[in-house]
Amino acid sequence: MSAAKHYLTDPTSAVLSNLNSLTLTNPSLLLDAANKIVYRNPSSILNPHNVSVVCGGGSGHEPGFAGFVGDGLLTACVAGTIFASPGAEQVRTCLQHRLPSESKGVLVVATNYTGDVLNFGMGVEKARALGKKVEMVVVGDDVGVGRERGGKVGRRGLSGTALVVKVVGALAEQGVGLEDCARVGRLVVDNLVSLGASLSRVHVPGRGIEEAREEEKRLGPELIEIGMGIHNEPGCEQVKTDLPGLVKIMLKQMLDQSDKDRSYVKIEKTDETILLINNFGGVSNLELGAITNEVVIQLEKNHGLKPRRIIQGTLFGSLDGPGFIVSVLKLADTKLGAGKSILGLIDAPVNAIGWPRCVTAETWEQNHKPPPLGMMEQEDETEPSNLKLDPSKLRSTLEPALKKLIASEAEVTRYDSVVGDGDCGIGLKRGAEAILKELPSMTSDDAMMAFAKICPTVENNMDGTSGALYAIFLNSLASNLRALDTSSPTPVTAEIWAKALAMSIEGLGRYTPAQPGDRTLMDALVPYVKVLQKTGDPKEAAKAAKVGADKTKGMKASLGRSVYVGGTGFEEVPDPGAYGLSVFLSGIADAL
Amino acid sequence: MSAAKHYLTDPTSAVLSNLNSLTLTNPSLLLDAANKIVYRNPSSILNPHNVSVVCGGGSGHEPGFAGFVGDGLLTACVAGTIFASPGAEQVRTCLQHRLPSESKGVLVVATNYTGDVLNFGMGVEKARALGKKVEMVVVGDDVGVGRERGGKVGRRGLSGTALVVKVVGALAEQGVGLEDCARVGRLVVDNLVSLGASLSRVHVPGRGIEEAREEEKRLGPELIEIGMGIHNEPGCEQVKTDLPGLVKIMLKQMLDQSDKDRSYVKIEKTDETILLINNFGGVSNLELGAITNEVVIQLEKNHGLKPRRIIQGTLFGSLDGPGFIVSVLKLADTKLGAGKSILGLIDAPVNAIGWPRCVTAETWEQNHKPPPLGMMEQEDETEPSNLKLDPSKLRSTLEPALKKLIASEAEVTRYDSVVGDGDCGIGLKRGAEAILKELPSMTSDDAMMAFAKICPTVENNMDGTSGALYAIFLNSLASNLRALDTSSPTPVTAEIWAKALAMSIEGLGRYTPAQPGDRTLMDALVPYVKVLQKTGDPKEAAKAAKVGADKTKGMKASLGRSVYVGGTGFEEVPDPGAYGLSVFLSGIADAL
Repeated sequence: MSAAKHYLTDPTSAVLSNLNSLTLTNPSLLLDAANKIVYRNPSSILNPHNVSVVCGGGSGHEPGFAGFVGDGLLTACVAGTIFASPGAEQVRTCLQHRLPSESKGVLVVATNYTGDVLNFGMGVEKARALGKKVEMVVVGDDVGVGRERGGKVGRRGLSGTALVVKVVGALAEQGVGLEDCARVGRLVVDNLVSLGASLSRVHVPGRGIEEAREEEKRLGPELIEIGMGIHNEPGCEQVKTDLPGLVKIMLKQMLDQSDKDRSYVKIEKTDETILLINNFGGVSNLELGAITNEVVIQLEKNHGLKPRRIIQGTLFGSLDGPGFIVSVLKLADTKLGAGKSILGLIDAPVNAIGWPRCVTAETWEQNHKPPPLGMMEQEDETEPSNLKLDPSKLRSTLEPALKKLIASEAEVTRYDSVVGDGDCGIGLKRGAEAILKELPSMTSDDAMMAFAKICPTVENNMDGTSGALYAIFLNSLASNLRALDTSSPTPVTAEIWAKALAMSIEGLGRYTPAQPGDRTLMDALVPYVKVLQKTGDPKEAAKAAKVGADKTKGMKASLGRSVYVGGTGFEEVPDPGAYGLSVFLSGIADAL
Repeated sequence: MSAAKHYLTDPTSAVLSNLNSLTLTNPSLLLDAANKIVYRNPSSILNPHNVSVVCGGGSGHEPGFAGFVGDGLLTACVAGTIFASPGAEQVRTCLQHRLPSESKGVLVVATNYTGDVLNFGMGVEKARALGKKVEMVVVGDDVGVGRERGGKVGRRGLSGTALVVKVVGALAEQGVGLEDCARVGRLVVDNLVSLGASLSRVHVPGRGIEEAREEEKRLGPELIEIGMGIHNEPGCEQVKTDLPGLVKIMLKQMLDQSDKDRSYVKIEKTDETILLINNFGGVSNLELGAITNEVVIQLEKNHGLKPRRIIQGTLFGSLDGPGFIVSVLKLADTKLGAGKSILGLIDAPVNAIGWPRCVTAETWEQNHKPPPLGMMEQEDETEPSNLKLDPSKLRSTLEPALKKLIASEAEVTRYDSVVGDGDCGIGLKRGAEAILKELPSMTSDDAMMAFAKICPTVENNMDGTSGALYAIFLNSLASNLRALDTSSPTPVTAEIWAKALAMSIEGLGRYTPAQPGDRTLMDALVPYVKVLQKTGDPKEAAKAAKVGADKTKGMKASLGRSVYVGGTGFEEVPDPGAYGLSVFLSGIADAL
């Protein structure tokens, strides 16, 4: 569970293997392994006269930037070792020997870290001295480190760099000259604000496990660090808050004009913007989407901003770091005409595996009408029947049985943790609680009306395997009861129940091959119905269900998720589904 | 550092927020939150008569499958809670009310897990009973659980499901009928093999931290689990091996025809294939690329397979699990003509944010010529000078000084771990070792030839900030020495050294604003050069460097990465760069 485990422990070979993989996932790329340069094969470049765009920096930020080499983005990328800038000689080699010689100039984009500025700057100066036409844009977009603390260094370069690269890459692809490419690149920088946050620093392959332990102590389980950078340096501030609280603090630091230390870019409600949510690499896509959702809600609610585009993904990461960066780019005028607006350049096509998939500009700009009313209409109401039962008796029987089932959750979960994935107990509890909530509304003496309440409640509140089995079974039970409907009011006797139950067991067989002996809830259900049908006595039937559930101890599962589980322990515990059902059936019997 | 930390601890709200985010990153989508259905807005569907394609399953697999809703892929997706199938009523609602009513049929794709088959099957049956034309394709592509253990259940559905969805989505977009869509979907399943491996199971938001600890014990730091599924169930086999060893085992289980328990699909050297490397979510892109690289190498070397396409990304994940799945799809004949080959359908455009960015079919099929020879040519040789030194004295001075610097690595690293990112010691050591290796070849009595060896060695072996500073300084030192070159052979005296050194310190100023007092290596370098210039005594100069380095204790950094560090501790330790340099300079003085 610790991120201190890796597939590769040698960082050098990890970096080289990853760079080489880019020539495999994009066969138009070449790798100069000695200099860690990924560059476009000249034979694949349509317009070698275009400005070449070069970026780079330490490794560990994948897909940035080697993953951005390709049409519409970068011509080449120079990589360093993990979190360390490449050397100037690597940069010089790239500028001098790895770009189309016909190119009308080279734009180098580097992030504002001392090492990167020094190395790329030196490489640029060397290439210039040799007669190359080179311009350099340094990206600083971070607001985490304010003016006071940043001092002489200026803003750090964060994932906003990806937006700069995207814009200048698209401009270069359109044949725009070097000066304009550089000018627009700097224009993007001047309109960018970014801020990072993370649950932890990352563990670098090849380092000891102790670092992971120390980090756990440094940034405790309830703390989130704001202002986290992408080179594993600690952040600026540790906060104890939930996601809405975190996003609130972050957007304030990014956008509040009254914060003199941090108000780097003036963004107002009337401004058009692009939002980028960048994953450090280790945030699950589930949580990343939730983060995007929260940021978009608060941007509109608290800051009046509704971005023209929302880009989400891992663009400029920090290995498998559990962090993210929010960037807001104000859309300034490029003065190059409508065809070359920042928005159009962000939308322009790319042919590089590192840029995240976004929907087309047409999809963004389309007028999406609300769905037709008919689309949302729900099902018809249940038709009444003559099958009668006493609603107060129904409630007083179900209530204690459901409560017993709820009380057994911990036990069922424990059994399921041994043999399954541990969700069976919660699923049963959730279903039981939902029916319990419906009980007061079950006032009809029509059995069909009771099922009309119970079936959708089970279906909507229990999921997973057992939820489906229960839903199929109860729907089937309702249909089968209805098939026994009479022309005048008739109470549902134990005999009628037993008959419908037996028919429903047969119905289940269409959806599951499970039989008694397969270690499923059938081991409790089938004996229950058989004995009920034979004796008409729910207490005897419940006993049979209990015996059936107990018998599953030691059974090997041949169906259900527990089949895939390699572990042992099934000898000691019963099947959780069968056990839970037997608890409920005993509860019914006790209450009758 | 533990993956037991999350931004959201309530799984229900995490799932709903993520689903809602899809309507933000793709404004043509709608969300039915009550039923967890993400579906295309009918107003955005160009051909509502086309077959609708629906997929779904538990959450936690993002972007699969809600992220695949969009043109060319899915019409709708039904989601469950984390790792649990949605209920049948959700599925029925989707089929009946969330698809274009004009659609000529619905193809449902589900993964082969009991819960999914039951719920989707029941939803399909209900919709069919209401008159809808629906077909269902169940995907089982896993080879991890062999025939014997899989029993009645059959193969599990893994990330190969994404390829099935891609193919049928593209077919439906082309107006192909329901029967052909279903047939080709099953054809893809029949030609798919997949296998997963992971370093650990994942921690589900909302669960206790104990589960993470238990997992660390279950699957120790040196073990990798093969046959890992995507629902957090344990795998089939634990191995202790490196990446090449792991990939070898995996490809053998996937492709070995003599393994009767597992040879589900016959794939031969003459077959055309597609390779998919799917991230569970938590593998860093650095390592994922290295994994792809290893798989491609071994596929060709050991199995004679060279895939027509290589797709890499998180398609069907398991939260932030540190695992991956390898899938190989054999390209079978769809019998629908060349325009509808599996390859063409995989290449077909999509407009959904979950599908990974791949390079175009043209880029794959293009004839990529080797780069022109001129592109790889290297720099001119160094011109000789009259600046003489004794090469054996040079070697005997540098050798012990470099060795002292190497020996100080642990100390430097410790200092840098307090104030920086801990890479300073390794950087200095790497540079020193590289020069040490070059020493035997320094046999010329021309000082310029020594620099011609040392400069590129430093540039190529030291990166990061200090590497650049050293490289700039040494290059500058060489140029400045050369400026003092004479017309006849002259030994380089301490005076000449001091003069060139002083000029070079000035040169550094063009690339860094650092001055003594800024807590950088300048705190050691500047006093050294000053004293050397004044006294001509390297021992006195080295002492001054040591004093300067010591003085950095307690200095606040105003430059360099340590500026960003919020922590304390700088009072107790000197600047690691200044300290390292002073160790080296003392070593020189001692050896003279």
